[in-house]
Amino acid sequence: MPAKNTIKVLIGGKIITLSGYESEAYLQRVATYINHKLTQLSDIPGYNRQPVDIKNTLLSLNLADDYFKAKHQAEIFEEESQSKDKELYDLKHDLIHVQIELEKLTQERADLKAKVAQLEAELANLR
Amino acid sequence: MPAKNTIKVLIGGKIITLSGYESEAYLQRVATYINHKLTQLSDIPGYNRQPVDIKNTLLSLNLADDYFKAKHQAEIFEEESQSKDKELYDLKHDLIHVQIELEKLTQERADLKAKVAQLEAELANLR
Repeated sequence: MPAKNTIKVLIGGKIITLSGYESEAYLQRVATYINHKLTQLSDIPGYNRQPVDIKNTLLSLNLADDYFKAKHQAEIFEEESQSKDKELYDLKHDLIHVQIELEKLTQERADLKAKVAQLEAELANLR
Repeated sequence: MPAKNTIKVLIGGKIITLSGYESEAYLQRVATYINHKLTQLSDIPGYNRQPVDIKNTLLSLNLADDYFKAKHQAEIFEEESQSKDKELYDLKHDLIHVQIELEKLTQERADLKAKVAQLEAELANLR
């Protein structure tokens, strides 16, 4: 079990003490991302005049929107991956089929070559 | 361009008017998700005694954590999908190679059969 980390991060200008099993680097990334969102929001005209609860709700909506978009992206890639599994399965099946056919033909060629050699020997004896 | 929707949703017990090009169903899903997170947080012992800004930060951290996890999941599926592309490319290449070999052998078999028929005819003439 990894060690529990306690680190201080700056979110929205306030020092927050975070404690968890996530790495310090991860917790810093999360804080940086939230601060980036806060900066983006404060660039929207009128945002800074909003009451604090509205500002907080706007931040939550923004973060939740990012989550849903990332989740949707994950679903798309997962479906792609599954459809490629199907394609891989079919191709492996085709390849095995063609390889069996190839072995059969290789054997037939060897048999026919032996037959040709035998017939040529018989002809040589008769001439 | 889709029509701009204005809908009212309930987030954390407050009525919020949202306006955007996202569908009403999507905006409701986002609100439901945030409310679910708020319920989860309020189940944590001590959460309800925290000042409102700490509560808000905890919610933001929670949402951001979900976002990073979904993003990570998307990256894993994307890598899987790309590695399957490589595998598909290699298999298609192998299949083409084997099919060419198969065509060559099919032609060789036809030639050898013709040769056998010809030698058998010659033998029949000599006997």
